[in-house]
Amino acid sequence: MTPLTPHHDGSPLYVSDIAPQLGDIVRVRVRVPAAYGPLTAVRTRSNPDHEPEWADAALVGSADGWDWWEAPLAVRNFRHGYRWLFVHESGLVEWLNQVGIHSIETRDDDDFALVAHPAPPAWLYDAVMYQVFPDRFARSPQADTHPTPEWAIATAWDEPVDPVLPGRSQQFYGGDLDGITGKLDHLVELGVNLLYLTPVFPAASNHRYDAASFHSVDPLLGGDDAYVRLIEAAHARGIRVIGDLTLNHSGDRHEWFASAFGNPGSETEDYYYFLDDDNLTYESWLGTPTLPKFNWASEALRAAFADGPDAVIAKWLRPPYSADGWRIDVANMTGRLGAIDLNAEVRQLMRRAMIDINPETILLGESTNDAASDLQGDGWHGAMTYPSFTRPLWGWLSQPTGEPYLTAEGEERTEPWFFGQPIGGIPSFTARQFVDAVVRFTSGIPWRVRLGNMQPLDTHDTGRFATNAAPGTIPVAVGLSMTLPGMPVVFAGDEYALTGVDGEMSRTPMPWGTEGEPLVAERLALYRQLIGLRREHPVLGTGGLRWLHVDDETIVFVRESAEESVLVLATRGDADVELVPGVLAGVTEASTLVGKATFATAADGSVLLSADGPAFAAWALPGVVAPEAHVDADLPASVGAVDGARAVSPADLVAETP
Amino acid sequence: MTPLTPHHDGSPLYVSDIAPQLGDIVRVRVRVPAAYGPLTAVRTRSNPDHEPEWADAALVGSADGWDWWEAPLAVRNFRHGYRWLFVHESGLVEWLNQVGIHSIETRDDDDFALVAHPAPPAWLYDAVMYQVFPDRFARSPQADTHPTPEWAIATAWDEPVDPVLPGRSQQFYGGDLDGITGKLDHLVELGVNLLYLTPVFPAASNHRYDAASFHSVDPLLGGDDAYVRLIEAAHARGIRVIGDLTLNHSGDRHEWFASAFGNPGSETEDYYYFLDDDNLTYESWLGTPTLPKFNWASEALRAAFADGPDAVIAKWLRPPYSADGWRIDVANMTGRLGAIDLNAEVRQLMRRAMIDINPETILLGESTNDAASDLQGDGWHGAMTYPSFTRPLWGWLSQPTGEPYLTAEGEERTEPWFFGQPIGGIPSFTARQFVDAVVRFTSGIPWRVRLGNMQPLDTHDTGRFATNAAPGTIPVAVGLSMTLPGMPVVFAGDEYALTGVDGEMSRTPMPWGTEGEPLVAERLALYRQLIGLRREHPVLGTGGLRWLHVDDETIVFVRESAEESVLVLATRGDADVELVPGVLAGVTEASTLVGKATFATAADGSVLLSADGPAFAAWALPGVVAPEAHVDADLPASVGAVDGARAVSPADLVAETP
Repeated sequence: MTPLTPHHDGSPLYVSDIAPQLGDIVRVRVRVPAAYGPLTAVRTRSNPDHEPEWADAALVGSADGWDWWEAPLAVRNFRHGYRWLFVHESGLVEWLNQVGIHSIETRDDDDFALVAHPAPPAWLYDAVMYQVFPDRFARSPQADTHPTPEWAIATAWDEPVDPVLPGRSQQFYGGDLDGITGKLDHLVELGVNLLYLTPVFPAASNHRYDAASFHSVDPLLGGDDAYVRLIEAAHARGIRVIGDLTLNHSGDRHEWFASAFGNPGSETEDYYYFLDDDNLTYESWLGTPTLPKFNWASEALRAAFADGPDAVIAKWLRPPYSADGWRIDVANMTGRLGAIDLNAEVRQLMRRAMIDINPETILLGESTNDAASDLQGDGWHGAMTYPSFTRPLWGWLSQPTGEPYLTAEGEERTEPWFFGQPIGGIPSFTARQFVDAVVRFTSGIPWRVRLGNMQPLDTHDTGRFATNAAPGTIPVAVGLSMTLPGMPVVFAGDEYALTGVDGEMSRTPMPWGTEGEPLVAERLALYRQLIGLRREHPVLGTGGLRWLHVDDETIVFVRESAEESVLVLATRGDADVELVPGVLAGVTEASTLVGKATFATAADGSVLLSADGPAFAAWALPGVVAPEAHVDADLPASVGAVDGARAVSPADLVAETP
Repeated sequence: MTPLTPHHDGSPLYVSDIAPQLGDIVRVRVRVPAAYGPLTAVRTRSNPDHEPEWADAALVGSADGWDWWEAPLAVRNFRHGYRWLFVHESGLVEWLNQVGIHSIETRDDDDFALVAHPAPPAWLYDAVMYQVFPDRFARSPQADTHPTPEWAIATAWDEPVDPVLPGRSQQFYGGDLDGITGKLDHLVELGVNLLYLTPVFPAASNHRYDAASFHSVDPLLGGDDAYVRLIEAAHARGIRVIGDLTLNHSGDRHEWFASAFGNPGSETEDYYYFLDDDNLTYESWLGTPTLPKFNWASEALRAAFADGPDAVIAKWLRPPYSADGWRIDVANMTGRLGAIDLNAEVRQLMRRAMIDINPETILLGESTNDAASDLQGDGWHGAMTYPSFTRPLWGWLSQPTGEPYLTAEGEERTEPWFFGQPIGGIPSFTARQFVDAVVRFTSGIPWRVRLGNMQPLDTHDTGRFATNAAPGTIPVAVGLSMTLPGMPVVFAGDEYALTGVDGEMSRTPMPWGTEGEPLVAERLALYRQLIGLRREHPVLGTGGLRWLHVDDETIVFVRESAEESVLVLATRGDADVELVPGVLAGVTEASTLVGKATFATAADGSVLLSADGPAFAAWALPGVVAPEAHVDADLPASVGAVDGARAVSPADLVAETP
């Protein structure tokens, strides 16, 4: 991460095709500082079928103090990893991968990687997501006609969330889908363009992750028709909508489970893992009896979810519903149980079924910890995941209040909730540690998939970031969510300055009508501004990422494309940064997009940035000037009868031994 | 790798059972320096079914300045990863994994890991391997009766290896199996106890990786009977024998290929990837036509290799042959071709078939680069791999001669061969870089599997280390191969001080009769001494590893068990090291095992080591004193009807949402 070193990432500046097919030739480029020292060779090292393959890069031109080298890669495997190699005249050898520059060899996992699976729709990269938990978002006039279910404690909209059981889990505020429809103009004003709804299927809880069916929308939410109305109204406003599906389990009231429970020989008994001959005991999500776990060895279960246009995964993506994709709950555990691991089969099956119905849909998987192993582009387009952004952000920008709060059991606690991790509260990170964590947990993921990762400050499963945010840091946090590679996510209510100590308490009913309160007005304006920044600058969706400066307090990075660049400064303390000379060679001016900070260039061309922190600032810079010429190289032969196989030999292998 | 930090590895000091079954409870321990600072908690974090699970550790006692904590782990998956967590009173949180200590979260790949697949036989950890390339090892009196094959250039034993084609690939020296049998006493004197033979099947090359059959031993080597004689004679001397098998391809003269080539509809046509209707073109190893690639989607191929006692993998492990295992050639590419990846199925199938015949056999896979993805314990017991030891060792201890040599094409070159990597010769590493590379390429591999990795200075596929070894470093290199975790390997001829610039030139005929030459005598003595060190100290096979000191010139580490410890110093330059106080607390004396170096303790108990480098030295230390008490913990429930599944819930999850 030393900034004046060679740079490559998966963005279009460096990769000629981010959605190749097996057998395609992709041209990859690396930019090398002219001052890097004389090189005798620049090469790529791929790993097709787990065996090294080398390609020479050629110098295609220079601009703004950077030499650009290009090499052709024949895409051999669905995940085609590669790294760069620099041989210095001095004899020094350096390697470049997604972690950075190395003087020793690097691991396969950290390679840059092309993905030859079908690409997600391009709109994924323009999306700013707004997450809604239906019970707590808005009540339509019809909501008063919905009965309170038998398991629930009816709760008025302005009553606080009860931290203590049983209220904690049984409060029912009665938000509904028409309520959401009625508030879509709020989303438009905010600037978001993707609405993600947590489950809408009938269930026996306010969160509805215990689905009783996947074939109808909960009547308490307004039923199927209300879902159609909502999606139509959203689409009319340019807002896409995705649903939330549990592939790991159903509820114990689910029609499939009900017919199998206590009923050996039933048609759906092999959908689940029954543990006794009477079908009375069974595997469930973390042992929770209301959430029986699916058995993905069942062909019938696979068919129910993914075979044909009426299967669960397909039905809701077709008219009259026409939803735009899915977020899959507990994707990380799905299909996994002890000796069994069918996860890859399930995610691939689901995506194939979705492509059959409508390839312009997206598929995101919840994977709240290290998501890399499942995020190689074969199924999930991205993850709802926390270690690569959300948790390190909390670590960097929090200042716990120390205010006591009540646990589910009614115990008083002051140690802040931190994602269920028993680590003594929120860790205290420097900016450097934040960046180290972002790099660590993204370097195992192909660039294209990384762009699909959700980047929330918080969700319905977490406390709200604002609860323990250090003074002045909320613009920094929101700004980073909008400018780092990944999909920005606004959990409904954050823009209303809500707080919540944990994942239950953050499910606060929306405080409609408080827009005039100064704190809310300020927060709404902040969100509109920063969402606007993201929406107006496509480079923030798909542009490259270079870290230009990192210290304990301050981060500076730039998102880059040939069309435009956006320079970002984020700092918790005061910032007074002189960028390493040359990292922005050619840039002499910058126009402020957001934030209060100073951009100046010294006589020698070096760039000085300063701000009174905490601060978030962004500037527009010109697009990157890169040579247009390409290498007229002898391209590797690539296509055999077997997709992507290598049918032609390197020249001189006859003398070698396998 | 700061030495005075908590330590854990997969060795018996820290893990109660390195060969558990799914559902078993394994007690894991971590030792924490008393001076580490007050802790409020020590925990493990596992990841069953990809979802975090935490276990509290309890302090079980203290000894020699270390506190020992213990936690129970229920083994949920075949690879059960875990990491340690330390919560300091100060609020600092630290994580410990196979890379070391971290202040930010760590990746799943780098977790410590228990393996619930069947364990290899224990003898694997006592093995010192001796690698023989049969054509070049020794000729029996009967060898003169063997004809020279039609493809070969008959070459007398004392003629040099010809660097230039066609001699390079066609020279035939005519070593045979009875020749090896006749030299077994040399192996006994050397002290090795595992003989690995490169292929012995009939073929059309001197290396025999282009097998013409897997059901008979090459008559040029003496045929099946000679193989029986060799193995019987080896076993009689306490030496085990493993063979070499290509699962990736056969030769184009193989009986299976011959019957399918140009013969559509033949019984064996689906063993290969034919690319046209006439079976005239086909996939092959890196496009080499003589090496047609196997298609592992073929059930018939699977059966031919692994179904029943007469299948290839089984037959040679049974009487009358009774070999002790296999090294699998090109294991990394086996079953992989473009869109296809059946590697895991193949390696698991092979191991299951071997267990059916004789579980006391071993299975090693060639994987010459980053081997971690295939080395999770489900098939290969270890790898013939170079990035985790051999290559960094060359980088650290080489001093290229600059002497010109000839390539296969007869071109003169001075840039040393370096494992086929086009990186400008042998990189120049510090000791620190050597250690960094060892750590990087072993931290993704479970400890038990790491112990099975081959640790050669060179093999039949590489130049010989001695060719470019810096003066005085050969004892350092051999010493490290014998003392770092992994299986030591002596490539026949290294102990005779042979050199060879690349993988062809290193296949030098053994210079029997030169034992009296000073250099050879010295080298033989060195090998006998260092192999003896390994064999006499079981801790070098299975003991823990702590790095105690690393700088640019010098490495100090200790291998530890409850019974004994061995302290090792390896240095390229002069060493004058004061170990960090406390890392060897309790140790007041050491008895020299090998090498010229000084061990001293200062009045404050700190340890001073010095040597005139290059030097390798080892000392015997007492075994580690660890508390005997165990935690009487509430163990997690572990066994459901589905192997290893979790049937019992953590207490308070009912209130949480999936």
